[in-house]
Amino acid sequence: MKTPSILITNDDGIYAPGILQLYKSLNEIGLVTVVAPLIEKSAVGHAITISDPLRVIEVERDGTFFGYAVNGTPADCVKLGIQCILKDKPDLVVSGINLGPNTATNIIYSGTVSAAAEAVIMGIPAMAVSLTSFTSKDFSYAGKIAYRIAREILKHGLPEETLLNVNVPSVPEHEINDIIITRQGKGRYQEAFDKRTDPNNRTYYWLTGKRMMLDKDPDVDDLAVMHNKVSITPIHYDLTNYDFLKELNKWNLKP
Amino acid sequence: MKTPSILITNDDGIYAPGILQLYKSLNEIGLVTVVAPLIEKSAVGHAITISDPLRVIEVERDGTFFGYAVNGTPADCVKLGIQCILKDKPDLVVSGINLGPNTATNIIYSGTVSAAAEAVIMGIPAMAVSLTSFTSKDFSYAGKIAYRIAREILKHGLPEETLLNVNVPSVPEHEINDIIITRQGKGRYQEAFDKRTDPNNRTYYWLTGKRMMLDKDPDVDDLAVMHNKVSITPIHYDLTNYDFLKELNKWNLKP
Repeated sequence: MKTPSILITNDDGIYAPGILQLYKSLNEIGLVTVVAPLIEKSAVGHAITISDPLRVIEVERDGTFFGYAVNGTPADCVKLGIQCILKDKPDLVVSGINLGPNTATNIIYSGTVSAAAEAVIMGIPAMAVSLTSFTSKDFSYAGKIAYRIAREILKHGLPEETLLNVNVPSVPEHEINDIIITRQGKGRYQEAFDKRTDPNNRTYYWLTGKRMMLDKDPDVDDLAVMHNKVSITPIHYDLTNYDFLKELNKWNLKP
Repeated sequence: MKTPSILITNDDGIYAPGILQLYKSLNEIGLVTVVAPLIEKSAVGHAITISDPLRVIEVERDGTFFGYAVNGTPADCVKLGIQCILKDKPDLVVSGINLGPNTATNIIYSGTVSAAAEAVIMGIPAMAVSLTSFTSKDFSYAGKIAYRIAREILKHGLPEETLLNVNVPSVPEHEINDIIITRQGKGRYQEAFDKRTDPNNRTYYWLTGKRMMLDKDPDVDDLAVMHNKVSITPIHYDLTNYDFLKELNKWNLKP
């Protein structure tokens, strides 16, 4: 069997610890190519760069060639990686390992998830992997999980336009209770702006916020993670609210 | 009845022609507040600004106060408008009128649609309105459509976490064939990169692409617009692929 070709990227930037672990873990099952943002691009959502030129530079880590850095977003990296860096389409795209959870409503802001979305739009199976801590330095268990799910995706494939969004609780492996299939929750950030005055007496605002858990069912991504379970959610990009189509047809919208 | 409060924004920037038409059209049914990006923010997807401070400046158009400009993304404008500029939550958020279509897979890159998404996440009914031309200067019919749908939303409300994504063909009003409820299509851009060399002999890339129509059913957004019909798609942000949950549960994911 041909060795699978795996493209990896992230939104924390090519020098982040999570992508190094991902590289090491996935090297065990495939030929891994790294194409990742040169600098951190968190919360960029599905931004793409259309008004500026993109550049690619080769980057070393641990004294040896590691991958390609792009002055763009995670979605740019996937597009450019597939079209200009790899000779053939990869068999799998994996984004991560992100520092911080990508669950519930917050996945629409996620650069990590959008990179995987870009891949499935281009017809390539993909997953996003996140460690649910903003400070942890131990990505080893998340790397094992990435390996295991990558192996299964390469074996089974994924439905059209569907990616797997994986969130790994940031606890020691022996404290992990389960690995479960979940649905996307409704949790979001309760946001506020911190209003300040700069040294020139001009007003500015910082976005701040705290996470709100708005679900109770144990099969929801946020709850799984809270109960120390690895959460795997199949995500797709048909955003149509089918349940509402009939009702909407009754509205008085014509002249 | 209390006059409805309507927040409007866009991704083409506060000085774009489309938002001026939207302002005029919606002023007929409500008190309109404009909070929009200072400069164009197209293709930013659902980006939010977390690493830079946001500033607000008051902007005039036609010699009179028009609205508030923000050095951020469309989603930032909605957050900041609701939390720091308006005293009370608005009754409706409308984003547009965008120059260019926001249909099919491409809506996930859309700053216009993401602004409306931000509103519905915050619990406020919303719609995004786009004119399907990149060059037109006549937003008058799209303004009428925005007015009519806004009136219906204010009357009926919208389901939780659902917005209306409206695309208006760029043809004279008498050539419009219908106003129909649609679902999101699968069309996307066939992308390519234009590889160039700069004056310092360094390589750079421009993203280019052409739209691909991948649907045939007349009830799809792309097709409606092609047939000179106004397309109204109800969009929501539960991205779970429910059809795939059962199958995924059969995978061998546990140690």
